[in-house]
Amino acid sequence: MDNYARIKAAKSEKKADLVIKNAKICDLACHEIYEGDVAVADGVIVGCGSYEGEVEIDAEGGYVMPSFVESHVHIESSMLTPAEFAKLEAAWGVTEVIADPHEIANVAGEDGLEFMINSAQGVPIDIHFMLPSCVPATEFDDAGAVIGAGKTAELMKKYDFFGVGEMMNYVGLLNLVPDVVEKVTTERCVDGHAPLLSGKELNAYAAAGIRTDHECTNEKEALEKISKGMYVMMREGTQSKNIEGLYKAVNPYTLRRFLFCTDDRYLGDVMREGSISNCVKKAVGLGMDSLDALIIACLNPSECYNLGRRGLIAPSYKADMIISRDLTAEHITHVFKDGKLIAKDGKALFETKNADASKVKNSVHIAPVASSDFALEYKKGMPVIEVFPKSLWTKCCETHEREELNLCAVIERHKGTGRMGKCFIKGFDLKGGAIAQTIGHDSHNITVLGDDTASMAAAVNALGTMGGMSVAKGGRAIAYMPLEIAGLMSDKCAEETLCEHDKIISAMGTLEVNSEIDPFMLLSFLSLLVIPSVKISDRGLFDVEKWRFFD
Amino acid sequence: MDNYARIKAAKSEKKADLVIKNAKICDLACHEIYEGDVAVADGVIVGCGSYEGEVEIDAEGGYVMPSFVESHVHIESSMLTPAEFAKLEAAWGVTEVIADPHEIANVAGEDGLEFMINSAQGVPIDIHFMLPSCVPATEFDDAGAVIGAGKTAELMKKYDFFGVGEMMNYVGLLNLVPDVVEKVTTERCVDGHAPLLSGKELNAYAAAGIRTDHECTNEKEALEKISKGMYVMMREGTQSKNIEGLYKAVNPYTLRRFLFCTDDRYLGDVMREGSISNCVKKAVGLGMDSLDALIIACLNPSECYNLGRRGLIAPSYKADMIISRDLTAEHITHVFKDGKLIAKDGKALFETKNADASKVKNSVHIAPVASSDFALEYKKGMPVIEVFPKSLWTKCCETHEREELNLCAVIERHKGTGRMGKCFIKGFDLKGGAIAQTIGHDSHNITVLGDDTASMAAAVNALGTMGGMSVAKGGRAIAYMPLEIAGLMSDKCAEETLCEHDKIISAMGTLEVNSEIDPFMLLSFLSLLVIPSVKISDRGLFDVEKWRFFD
Repeated sequence: MDNYARIKAAKSEKKADLVIKNAKICDLACHEIYEGDVAVADGVIVGCGSYEGEVEIDAEGGYVMPSFVESHVHIESSMLTPAEFAKLEAAWGVTEVIADPHEIANVAGEDGLEFMINSAQGVPIDIHFMLPSCVPATEFDDAGAVIGAGKTAELMKKYDFFGVGEMMNYVGLLNLVPDVVEKVTTERCVDGHAPLLSGKELNAYAAAGIRTDHECTNEKEALEKISKGMYVMMREGTQSKNIEGLYKAVNPYTLRRFLFCTDDRYLGDVMREGSISNCVKKAVGLGMDSLDALIIACLNPSECYNLGRRGLIAPSYKADMIISRDLTAEHITHVFKDGKLIAKDGKALFETKNADASKVKNSVHIAPVASSDFALEYKKGMPVIEVFPKSLWTKCCETHEREELNLCAVIERHKGTGRMGKCFIKGFDLKGGAIAQTIGHDSHNITVLGDDTASMAAAVNALGTMGGMSVAKGGRAIAYMPLEIAGLMSDKCAEETLCEHDKIISAMGTLEVNSEIDPFMLLSFLSLLVIPSVKISDRGLFDVEKWRFFD
Repeated sequence: MDNYARIKAAKSEKKADLVIKNAKICDLACHEIYEGDVAVADGVIVGCGSYEGEVEIDAEGGYVMPSFVESHVHIESSMLTPAEFAKLEAAWGVTEVIADPHEIANVAGEDGLEFMINSAQGVPIDIHFMLPSCVPATEFDDAGAVIGAGKTAELMKKYDFFGVGEMMNYVGLLNLVPDVVEKVTTERCVDGHAPLLSGKELNAYAAAGIRTDHECTNEKEALEKISKGMYVMMREGTQSKNIEGLYKAVNPYTLRRFLFCTDDRYLGDVMREGSISNCVKKAVGLGMDSLDALIIACLNPSECYNLGRRGLIAPSYKADMIISRDLTAEHITHVFKDGKLIAKDGKALFETKNADASKVKNSVHIAPVASSDFALEYKKGMPVIEVFPKSLWTKCCETHEREELNLCAVIERHKGTGRMGKCFIKGFDLKGGAIAQTIGHDSHNITVLGDDTASMAAAVNALGTMGGMSVAKGGRAIAYMPLEIAGLMSDKCAEETLCEHDKIISAMGTLEVNSEIDPFMLLSFLSLLVIPSVKISDRGLFDVEKWRFFD
């Protein structure tokens, strides 16, 4: 903190380190836009006005705004390592990320967390890791790791996590399960996840100190949570898109309690439209005031998470800034972190190095499977999972014909137990082969789905020890995308990963499948036992409402 | 942090520790008022709704609001010790105080700071002490102590001060005086004091990390400071009243950047009208929305100063609350801190004990003075200080007659140097005696004013070694109010102190004096060398604009 340099530059007694000339400055404190230069010294903004700098960048009349905060994301869902993810985020104007690495934690426990932290080392944006609170997600899950309250306390201290990640187990918390209660009993920030929780149950959840929620889907829910002191995140991920349902709850008073997040977002979406910039664009498109959207994207999360002096273009605030041709950050030309240019014209200007991934590779531990392993006798009236377009919710379907169903299996892949749960599924309408993957929230066992058991076996076997995604046809694997890191993330760059992902999607396109669904995406949530109402795990068919397996 | 108790009480599985029944609940997050009960457990609010408690208090339809934050105050100006001051504040709904003990620091240095901290020990409200940054206020002052940057660093560590008190020496800071720059170079909060500073000078001041300002007197000034990232305090003290000049700058966007403070407020005013509650009443009286005023009084300072989860009536927020019959907190019936009732019907429910004051008593070190010491030859055209009603500003008057002037002297009282500055003053119109006191901002030397030198000597000698305020008439002291603590504060309770103060004011009333001024108040600022434009110190007449003594 060099106050001499700051004061001299602010008074124009010496040139600033950096000056952005000819800018429209977004003043989120007074809710105004005014013209001027922005001067930077010692990594912070030192003044707006007329300035000269050692380096000068002409904004050409573009907008200068604070850079964005991604308030809640599972980086693993992008299929990129934190280092590679950082490049995408930086290019789209995000310089602060609150990341919950709970996907990899379910596969690789502490090794996974350590890999994520190491991968983020040295990137020029701030990635703040939350310590996952629900590993595994439920007591019925067979994940690769268990992180109980004792371990949580140990890890919190060892790695100095930023806070505690989303407490999804609100049932356990409200029922006072000691392991759950202890995990949220901390002075650090605890993120929430409590869809539709209301009334006294929400009081109890909030009373335990849980500060945020990103599961709101309607205005009333958002306003109740805000009234109860929580910050509400408007999530716009790949699958869950909530801004449209929530933006009308924003008024000049509630404004300060909203944040944006993406939660789970595929790299393709991030590459094409960004993460938080996409939230801003979406909200403004729906009619939200542009500066309101920027307040939500920049200032509010800095306050919610105590990120220090950031979120305003004002003296002493960190020079974490965007120059954009438009107010909705669709055409970002420059991104600065601590006054340093880190991305230009949609491209990160920094290189990253791969962290040691030896402990989180080869995470698939199963014996080769055979076609016969998938044999399942069909009976009329047996419980079958039915899936639907644009939803992660399923229901139990008891009226069905064999020919409209696919076979689905979940195979435990962490400890080599050979445990496999099987069921029939309606709604995929997949014909001519099978798809398989090691992404399966949150335990990330292998999920495979198909219409012939030989292809199912081939698809599973194609995943090898690395894991990833595969497509098989006529009993032979025809495409495989490795996800070397824990079977969740690629160790390649974003462009190569996207290219590989495109290939797997193309291969799947050669099968017949319900065109209204995203098969891999839907498959990845079939084993998430906390979403209603019927799910499949390696232990069999699960009734979410009754909170037990089917007989 | 007992989350079991919180969750059980929130869910009504057991009675809450405390329930306020039949309340109108002020929801400052959603900007609404709704009816219900407020339940408290483990010191925090656990829910609003319908609740039963071990203790139940009927609000009788009154408003429940978060308790107030006094964002900037010199407790010494109340003439009460921190312990006694806490009782007054508590009775008026203030449970957090940001105090800058720079008056006593100028008299007694570290001993003074330690006394303040000790006096505040054990009171049930939070008094957060800032480390005074300007001791002495200027390089021309003869204060009782000097706290340079080295000492500041040492004290910060030793006493874990909350932050750095108002940096009044903006001239020194902008001119890069190392001692000044070093004092504000800290990660802790630094309060500001920069009347009318603007443009690049304000950029520089803010760039140095100074976070607040309480010297704004007009809307434009406030908005510029907010635009530059500062929090602006609307001050309503005894002498300086700024809400009227500022409240129109509050709009739904700038709202979140305003705070209230009193800075310097006499105990009589606090007793009659409170401190922050008076700000709320004043602002609402001028037309501000009541809930906006409460947001400024409760929520904003909690955010500005990172006071933790307080400022909302919501689960997990500290149960720091007021019940008031009206929205402007004029009729407060109950005040709670951490869920405990600490004041009722305008009276604090706690007792305090006196801290050891032995090191800060007997702070007056002068030899007895004689009438002859005040001899000063009058010359036509000599520079004379002219004072005015309702203002602390003075000017240099060169056209005067001897009979319209009073004699004034400032006597160094800390080191016994015998140094005395003398001058003539126009505007007091005091006849028939003299007044003297050991309150004289910020060095707190003795200031005496009168129309006969014998009374002046008597008034000064009456101050003894304790210091305080005195009135003399016909060469004899007729009233003396001791201020035992550093010559600034009484060691008695508020009621007795007020009674003694009333007596001294009555005694002064037996002299003839300009009825439009408050003589003791005006006298106490005559030696503050940073207020334009002519001042008197123990070294003589000072030209504030030229920043030097008169020849």
